[in-house]
Amino acid sequence: MQAVDRLKAGALAAEAVAAALVELEDSPFTNAGMGSNLNLSGEIECDASIMDGKSLHYGAVGAISGIKNPVLVANRLLSEAQKGKLSAGRIPPCFLVGRGAHDWAVGHGIPPCPSEKMATKFSLSAYKRNKRKMALAEKMDTGHNHAKKRRQSSETENGSGCLDTVGAVVVDSEGNVAAAVSSGGLAMKHPGRVGQAAHYGCGCWAENAFNNPYSTAVSTSGCGEHLIRTMLARECSAALQSEDAHKALLEAMQNKFISSPFLAGEDRVLGGVIVLRCCRCVESPPSQNIQGILVEFLWSHTTESMCVGYMSAQDSKAKTHISRLPPGTVPGQCLAIEGGVCRLSVAE
Amino acid sequence: MQAVDRLKAGALAAEAVAAALVELEDSPFTNAGMGSNLNLSGEIECDASIMDGKSLHYGAVGAISGIKNPVLVANRLLSEAQKGKLSAGRIPPCFLVGRGAHDWAVGHGIPPCPSEKMATKFSLSAYKRNKRKMALAEKMDTGHNHAKKRRQSSETENGSGCLDTVGAVVVDSEGNVAAAVSSGGLAMKHPGRVGQAAHYGCGCWAENAFNNPYSTAVSTSGCGEHLIRTMLARECSAALQSEDAHKALLEAMQNKFISSPFLAGEDRVLGGVIVLRCCRCVESPPSQNIQGILVEFLWSHTTESMCVGYMSAQDSKAKTHISRLPPGTVPGQCLAIEGGVCRLSVAE
Repeated sequence: MQAVDRLKAGALAAEAVAAALVELEDSPFTNAGMGSNLNLSGEIECDASIMDGKSLHYGAVGAISGIKNPVLVANRLLSEAQKGKLSAGRIPPCFLVGRGAHDWAVGHGIPPCPSEKMATKFSLSAYKRNKRKMALAEKMDTGHNHAKKRRQSSETENGSGCLDTVGAVVVDSEGNVAAAVSSGGLAMKHPGRVGQAAHYGCGCWAENAFNNPYSTAVSTSGCGEHLIRTMLARECSAALQSEDAHKALLEAMQNKFISSPFLAGEDRVLGGVIVLRCCRCVESPPSQNIQGILVEFLWSHTTESMCVGYMSAQDSKAKTHISRLPPGTVPGQCLAIEGGVCRLSVAE
Repeated sequence: MQAVDRLKAGALAAEAVAAALVELEDSPFTNAGMGSNLNLSGEIECDASIMDGKSLHYGAVGAISGIKNPVLVANRLLSEAQKGKLSAGRIPPCFLVGRGAHDWAVGHGIPPCPSEKMATKFSLSAYKRNKRKMALAEKMDTGHNHAKKRRQSSETENGSGCLDTVGAVVVDSEGNVAAAVSSGGLAMKHPGRVGQAAHYGCGCWAENAFNNPYSTAVSTSGCGEHLIRTMLARECSAALQSEDAHKALLEAMQNKFISSPFLAGEDRVLGGVIVLRCCRCVESPPSQNIQGILVEFLWSHTTESMCVGYMSAQDSKAKTHISRLPPGTVPGQCLAIEGGVCRLSVAE
């Protein structure tokens, strides 16, 4: 993967995580960049954000159209903000939306891409099917009362059959972490709707250790409104400062997501996270003074399934895995959790 | 004030806080709604959000043009979301931006307002002065290196001479809290820039007590990017669960804002908050079984000054106050903090 090549060439975590996202956005099979879900008007509007755990800077774009790689705009906002103030003492923006975001991107050398090139056969035919479903659902409602209408259950295709939001978390050889996320948003969303992928603390989070024991990076996927209102990325990051990462993530997903008071009344709470946490450790024998980074990578989700891939600079190719809920459990009410630990050697 | 009249008529906190914001937006002297700052293209784009502590629902609009009262759109998003799913199982949005937000508002019966009616003589002349300042600053930079350019100090007028973001916090007779915020954003901002006023956890926060000792409501004002990156509204709300409200707010402003690791490298961290916290208490003598609500209202800011007004249903008019930093202290590095306590009687 591009990201690992960049890391091997000495790139920092933020640059690598952006490179990983570009590859995922470029895949026509993900709901991000190329092949994104179409909104109610048949347009593609994307959300993306990136956070650098070293500088704690953050960049995001919401409801942006006509840009092939939204994450590159988010990353550029992040790097421009790191340069300090604009002329006449103006603070550089960290979050841009819509037409203004598009124009800023083009003004900063990111080429525009005609929207029709970003739609795929798959996304167009899903749009047509969804349109028909909606028309049918609304026709069936005619004559029924409003309350009933609002509790319609025939669902649009989102996540079922097609892939969803993409995200990545990275640690570099200095131990810096970064996280990013990119999404075309819910199928048939209202134009202008911004989901968790552009929302600070909700779509991604990255924080180097500083005064904490661990550096953490988190990226989320799922129902945007649920992920926003629970601020899931930041909550998972905070939880992961306690000793047992597996237990901490399990409890965070249970108490801060599935049973969150912010989502009381929701029958199905759908989302997933990938998390990375690391701390420096001294390799044995300590006399050799070779430092290492202990890296834990975990994932958890309440959706029926979630695709996960991971790779270290020592691997020749990425491992991929489709994680599924245990048999007999109910999506949105139960969760799956898995993960592993590895140790990276760092020469002093 | 409208808000207090609504409360007297039995309205809940969320409805009252929206009414308060409408009045503030309608004033041509605030940077919200009518009279908002113009952006780099000479357009008005507003941010607003509202949070209801009872349902924990939240609604927000970002970079919205052509709507006189952005907070009404945020409030409508909140109330529509409380009704449950849309047709075909779609989740209702909690955050809309730009053109899509405008069209959603109009589709939900909120009348459009020509942008030229929202500009005032004052905002137009400030725009012209800022344009000249920027041209001058950029001219002076010609031939200088880029790094120097990015550290320009001649500032655009924002908050100096003109009023800023508006916000309100409310508790109703049942003890429910709500908070809201509305802003035209930084003067000369890039089109599409969204500030803290539309950002979950950053512009406002409201949370009824549930399992916590206190209900809290917070609204923030100041430099949007600083308020976003420190998530100041939510941080203050969390801090206020400790016993001494004054001490908790002081420490939050000091440690989570002025000295926040998220703003390391920023020389001036400008912002202000108004906070409300309440808990039920039994009036003495307890045998009478008259419950009361103990309400603490505090404000704190690192800006040179902040305007504050407050009123209870027992008052015939609002008290207003211009809070200033202590003499000799430096804005962005020091803070002012004040506030008071009152007890509301609630018949059982």
